[in-house]
Amino acid sequence: MTTFPPLPDLILEPLVRAALTEDLGGQGDLTTRAVIPHDLTYDAAIVAREAGVVSGMQIAALAFRLVDPALRIETLRPDGASCVKGDALMRISGRAASILMAERVALNFAGRMSGIATLTAAFVAETAGTTARITCTRKTTPGLRIVEKQAVLHGGGTNHRFGLFDAVLIKDNHIAAVGGICAALSSARAALGHMVKVEVEVDRLDQLAELLETGGADAVLLDNMDTATLRESVAMVDGRLVTDASGNMRRDRIAEVAATGVDYISCGALTHSAQVLDLGLDF
Amino acid sequence: MTTFPPLPDLILEPLVRAALTEDLGGQGDLTTRAVIPHDLTYDAAIVAREAGVVSGMQIAALAFRLVDPALRIETLRPDGASCVKGDALMRISGRAASILMAERVALNFAGRMSGIATLTAAFVAETAGTTARITCTRKTTPGLRIVEKQAVLHGGGTNHRFGLFDAVLIKDNHIAAVGGICAALSSARAALGHMVKVEVEVDRLDQLAELLETGGADAVLLDNMDTATLRESVAMVDGRLVTDASGNMRRDRIAEVAATGVDYISCGALTHSAQVLDLGLDF
Amino acid sequence: MTTFPPLPDLILEPLVRAALTEDLGGQGDLTTRAVIPHDLTYDAAIVAREAGVVSGMQIAALAFRLVDPALRIETLRPDGASCVKGDALMRISGRAASILMAERVALNFAGRMSGIATLTAAFVAETAGTTARITCTRKTTPGLRIVEKQAVLHGGGTNHRFGLFDAVLIKDNHIAAVGGICAALSSARAALGHMVKVEVEVDRLDQLAELLETGGADAVLLDNMDTATLRESVAMVDGRLVTDASGNMRRDRIAEVAATGVDYISCGALTHSAQVLDLGLDF
Amino acid sequence: MTTFPPLPDLILEPLVRAALTEDLGGQGDLTTRAVIPHDLTYDAAIVAREAGVVSGMQIAALAFRLVDPALRIETLRPDGASCVKGDALMRISGRAASILMAERVALNFAGRMSGIATLTAAFVAETAGTTARITCTRKTTPGLRIVEKQAVLHGGGTNHRFGLFDAVLIKDNHIAAVGGICAALSSARAALGHMVKVEVEVDRLDQLAELLETGGADAVLLDNMDTATLRESVAMVDGRLVTDASGNMRRDRIAEVAATGVDYISCGALTHSAQVLDLGLDF
Amino acid sequence: MTTFPPLPDLILEPLVRAALTEDLGGQGDLTTRAVIPHDLTYDAAIVAREAGVVSGMQIAALAFRLVDPALRIETLRPDGASCVKGDALMRISGRAASILMAERVALNFAGRMSGIATLTAAFVAETAGTTARITCTRKTTPGLRIVEKQAVLHGGGTNHRFGLFDAVLIKDNHIAAVGGICAALSSARAALGHMVKVEVEVDRLDQLAELLETGGADAVLLDNMDTATLRESVAMVDGRLVTDASGNMRRDRIAEVAATGVDYISCGALTHSAQVLDLGLDF
Amino acid sequence: MTTFPPLPDLILEPLVRAALTEDLGGQGDLTTRAVIPHDLTYDAAIVAREAGVVSGMQIAALAFRLVDPALRIETLRPDGASCVKGDALMRISGRAASILMAERVALNFAGRMSGIATLTAAFVAETAGTTARITCTRKTTPGLRIVEKQAVLHGGGTNHRFGLFDAVLIKDNHIAAVGGICAALSSARAALGHMVKVEVEVDRLDQLAELLETGGADAVLLDNMDTATLRESVAMVDGRLVTDASGNMRRDRIAEVAATGVDYISCGALTHSAQVLDLGLDF
Repeated sequence: MTTFPPLPDLILEPLVRAALTEDLGGQGDLTTRAVIPHDLTYDAAIVAREAGVVSGMQIAALAFRLVDPALRIETLRPDGASCVKGDALMRISGRAASILMAERVALNFAGRMSGIATLTAAFVAETAGTTARITCTRKTTPGLRIVEKQAVLHGGGTNHRFGLFDAVLIKDNHIAAVGGICAALSSARAALGHMVKVEVEVDRLDQLAELLETGGADAVLLDNMDTATLRESVAMVDGRLVTDASGNMRRDRIAEVAATGVDYISCGALTHSAQVLDLGLDF
Repeated sequence: MTTFPPLPDLILEPLVRAALTEDLGGQGDLTTRAVIPHDLTYDAAIVAREAGVVSGMQIAALAFRLVDPALRIETLRPDGASCVKGDALMRISGRAASILMAERVALNFAGRMSGIATLTAAFVAETAGTTARITCTRKTTPGLRIVEKQAVLHGGGTNHRFGLFDAVLIKDNHIAAVGGICAALSSARAALGHMVKVEVEVDRLDQLAELLETGGADAVLLDNMDTATLRESVAMVDGRLVTDASGNMRRDRIAEVAATGVDYISCGALTHSAQVLDLGLDF
Repeated sequence: MTTFPPLPDLILEPLVRAALTEDLGGQGDLTTRAVIPHDLTYDAAIVAREAGVVSGMQIAALAFRLVDPALRIETLRPDGASCVKGDALMRISGRAASILMAERVALNFAGRMSGIATLTAAFVAETAGTTARITCTRKTTPGLRIVEKQAVLHGGGTNHRFGLFDAVLIKDNHIAAVGGICAALSSARAALGHMVKVEVEVDRLDQLAELLETGGADAVLLDNMDTATLRESVAMVDGRLVTDASGNMRRDRIAEVAATGVDYISCGALTHSAQVLDLGLDF
Repeated sequence: MTTFPPLPDLILEPLVRAALTEDLGGQGDLTTRAVIPHDLTYDAAIVAREAGVVSGMQIAALAFRLVDPALRIETLRPDGASCVKGDALMRISGRAASILMAERVALNFAGRMSGIATLTAAFVAETAGTTARITCTRKTTPGLRIVEKQAVLHGGGTNHRFGLFDAVLIKDNHIAAVGGICAALSSARAALGHMVKVEVEVDRLDQLAELLETGGADAVLLDNMDTATLRESVAMVDGRLVTDASGNMRRDRIAEVAATGVDYISCGALTHSAQVLDLGLDF
Repeated sequence: MTTFPPLPDLILEPLVRAALTEDLGGQGDLTTRAVIPHDLTYDAAIVAREAGVVSGMQIAALAFRLVDPALRIETLRPDGASCVKGDALMRISGRAASILMAERVALNFAGRMSGIATLTAAFVAETAGTTARITCTRKTTPGLRIVEKQAVLHGGGTNHRFGLFDAVLIKDNHIAAVGGICAALSSARAALGHMVKVEVEVDRLDQLAELLETGGADAVLLDNMDTATLRESVAMVDGRLVTDASGNMRRDRIAEVAATGVDYISCGALTHSAQVLDLGLDF
Repeated sequence: MTTFPPLPDLILEPLVRAALTEDLGGQGDLTTRAVIPHDLTYDAAIVAREAGVVSGMQIAALAFRLVDPALRIETLRPDGASCVKGDALMRISGRAASILMAERVALNFAGRMSGIATLTAAFVAETAGTTARITCTRKTTPGLRIVEKQAVLHGGGTNHRFGLFDAVLIKDNHIAAVGGICAALSSARAALGHMVKVEVEVDRLDQLAELLETGGADAVLLDNMDTATLRESVAMVDGRLVTDASGNMRRDRIAEVAATGVDYISCGALTHSAQVLDLGLDF
């Protein structure tokens, strides 16, 4: 379970409002309005229909509360907990119409986030016995990056840079544009302050050698290397840089990669190819 | 390929702006700003790294143009076209810094949408020789429903209702709340105008019989039925309602379900479990 | 009185905030701030200065609460109730400055909505003894459609489609563009899913005959027909389509039109030409 | 015709975007998308179906351009011009689908604004031969105040204060709260800077006398007075204050009120009870 | 201390949300989340590190409450009060993480506003024994005008017009464009209603004479005049217009200018060159 | 002059729109609309009324273009250039009304930014002959941080972390909350990924010793130390951490502090106490 406490609701609220607005439109839930008696009340629960790692409870609770502040909500499994099939994760009671209106938005967030957390946990499990950590990338759903990065934390992973603005990753195109690793690093260090980490992407050992010689980077992204080359790279670096392996890191390769001694393994799949965890709302 | 023309950019622009803002933050792309000479120009192309159905070209073009209206953009494969590995889908030329800044947002949208379109096309292919149509559900990514529903169209599917506000789907909870199908339909018809379709969910044949007897619905959602029951349901309905099969519709079951004669098959998997199509930006 | 329960405040809140911002600007209510002692409290009431049907109480309450969550508000006449001159509709008590700041916005919404509800009720009264229902159109105030459509419900009318996105209305221009009713309907049915209603506009009997022969529509808009032609159209349709009469439907023509047996009468006047109901705030 | 030039589009654009979003929703115009060939082009014109004063051409043009910047638009009758039945007010040519999508929003704005401008012109005509000017109030449609105040200008009227924030109007409730006109004015003058006009409402001659004695106001609102009392009030004021008559100022009373010599006549009816001017789009 | 009561929070909330979003980004406060135990609680206080006039307490309280509605906040020194070094201005207790997250935003607002209030009070003190009042200009921080104008009130100053939209100031460029003061004033009076104040800028006595002869203005801006010319101008005006001195009004010149008898002294320095008041948060 | 290229306009546009909306309100520029002939054109120039470093030209150009895209704008002195009194910085030609409407917003941004750039350059000049770099803090104007941080770059400074979300600064309160530097750093390293820099604040040499012993930080903030202690700290660190001096760093102390060998000097004064550079618009 993550050591990170919840975000302030202030940050998540605009995303939840947008999702509710998308689903409710201008007219609200026509079915519920037309059929459900206004004063009917329900006790409902979000229930896991399969095992996994829970994520999205904070945001699901927010969805219910934004639709109806009078709903009573009790979180039974906090973000980052594991669950088995049949576990009740959250109890919601109050006006039935309110619960039905927020149901799909709450489940769409929580199912997606729990799917990511569950997949992350599976990747993390593959690193057992090594010091390698699983980290996500910028291959996230447009507009939902914070939500997906939180889910990675809930699954036991760590977060790579959030966006283009909070850290520097010098890739092949940048290097080619200025004529080499040395020129690129020197431009970066002249322009940037001291609170910005700099990682450089290399895909060959000679590039890695050049990078080590140049100095000035904090980390190296070892991109699309086979396992032997990764192991050799880690040896060459010898602790002078943080090492970060990337490039089509499928789950069945993680154990082998982790065993090379790399510090981080960057996995786009965590966010771009997770399946939702099957959650339902029972009354 | 879909018969639907593009949406006005007006509708998609807020989503693309939000995604660019998420990735660029307040400070923009630190790497590009620090390393890439401001006047360097590039010719780049979005290239398919695997075969599939293309979706998201309109929105990718919008991402590049919002970052830099001076970029020249040529769409080579329109939304709804198929592609094979190595196909160039879009050509972008102009200021290198601008292309690099918009790259990830454009690819994140197009990869996700093309993944959905490709999965939809695979589902549609399973219905060959039948009149069944593949349709999506409300199990979409919060905030990106329009984008994902467009991708379903590009893959040859159709769209179910957009949200809670544009059509009525009376589910088991609604029926239970008012004491039966007849009461639910009568409430709905009294409250609604004539431009709203009404679909009713049933999961047993006796419920279907009650629905047919009651009248007043436009379509029936045959939920979680086995194939034999679906076939029997279609026979019972006998064209009096549109039939719509749902409930864990995996790809390997589609052909069999389509052969029962149902009109529509609702597949949450199209949007909640599609893998991204691997797209890259080559310079 | 409508059978529709209130919308979630979530949907109405942005409209009320925009209206308050418009009236308060950056500096707030200069008069109240300069003149009214900060701790003065009032008991106030929204009072009807003429008879009619009440609408806008939910939104008026929201206006007062957004300005000052500490105000105590009691709705005496809910949306959809009728009132006579002098009736108190809502009681508000608390800080005088808060009540004065929200007063005009609350009254502007409620007066306009009650005006629409009252006019709708008058149109509905003209249909007594028939099965015809009064429905609104898209000729609404830009940005306030949901508010005005709610008021139509409160007056006993029904809602036509909300916008261009939730149902299809094939008009003369669409038909002309593709060369005929048959071609237009066939395009529409190929492109649309099964949850979208399709209405087709005709203004002559031969067009109606073509539409009936073609099939595939859910409703027909009988546009700008005289009463005799409407009656003949209803007979021709004979229950195969929902019939919907439109075209300058003034109040003095409603009884006659309703008697033709049409199912719906679409009245732009409900929203584009209603006079406000005279409401005031008494202290 | 007004002497006021157009507002910058920047101010009007958010209102037009909101109205387009309201009508197009997430899915756009289903009918047009399903039926109209994407490359079909049209020449269309906004045509007056009755005589009146034109308003809303700037905003209608903006609606068309926001949907499709490639449309060619020519304004034939500028805001403030008069028109007779059959006059073409604006010509639009380009993609048919774009024109159809923006049509209703453009007409809803322009019809409402032209209705207000036409009613204003009728009120202004009643003041012929006097120096009285017709002015609007804050009884406007929530969220559309600027649009409606512009229409009043186009009809030859003037604008009263825009909102609560740009000028002071001390009403009976304010006076009661502090115990008299003198106390209210003295609070106001102490709190306000020199760029804020102060108008005081009176409904009896003894109040007017007290106001004149107190000094410090710029204008007096003569509220709900009969014509004789208005005439007497104007005489008492004798040019020391701007005089402003208000209170149920119907069109049939304007000539008589204007003849009393008041400087301004405030008419809520201009904005709260104008009927739309009948405009259509011809192809 | 100002006689103006607080603004409704509704007006200030968007500014505070924007500032919190700017500081918290998508990921919140990384340091606090990583280090501070989630359940730790603190008692904290905003403390003045130098003497001055307090402003920004309302907005600071709002910042804390938006981050965590459960924080308990007690304002010890209201906006407009004076403080000495070491004074506690506000007490905040509750979750430590919440207090730390809102701290900088609260202090940035309150420090800036208190700086403006303190500088204003210093300018006002220079007018002692005269009737001159200190007023601000439109030289404010973009986006924070209301906040800065409030601070001027808290310091004992008055507000000039808020923006371009609530009053008229005819400057040299306007006069040159239409060929003279008389033409400019006559255009203005024809276009504007009676609730808009008109001030005219002059920088020479002959212009002032022309203005007085023309009539129709409410105030005159005596721009960039030396003290003797100011005194002569005040004598020429002789109470017929409000007089307003402007042009590089430094603090060391205020006493002298105030002694000329001008009614107002417009000081851009209040908002464009105030130093923050040093405030800190003590635990 | 900075090596940083301009930000994409996309990032700055919302700030400029907000500032224009603040100044123009709903009614636009009353003076210009009432007085300036609509077709009058001007050639205007932003001119420096004192010497300094230019900043804000990009944003000023954006302000003019948002008001009127037809204005022709030529930047004569780019952001980061120096200017002397009388220099023309930007030439704007086109419709006079448009130029007058955008003038104040353009100048308010550019004057403030140029003031910060000029003050930064003065601080930087004090570091001549050392390797110390001047950096800003989070003591910026709420909502304008990106604008002010850009200005610091234009003046030759560097940027500290942008907000709470892009880097970690462990301060005394954080350390106290968990019982020591070692505990705080270990929590931070466990929770954070590898792309986040960690700086730790110390104000005594024994704390610095503890920090050096603990390891795991990237930089140390030497807070409120006298010059001798700073020099001793730099010696103790001996290149193992980036050193960053802070705490009331006035301009007259910079040379002395820079000479101690620290790497960075954090100066809140750059943004919280800069005076605007006097810029004007000449016609």
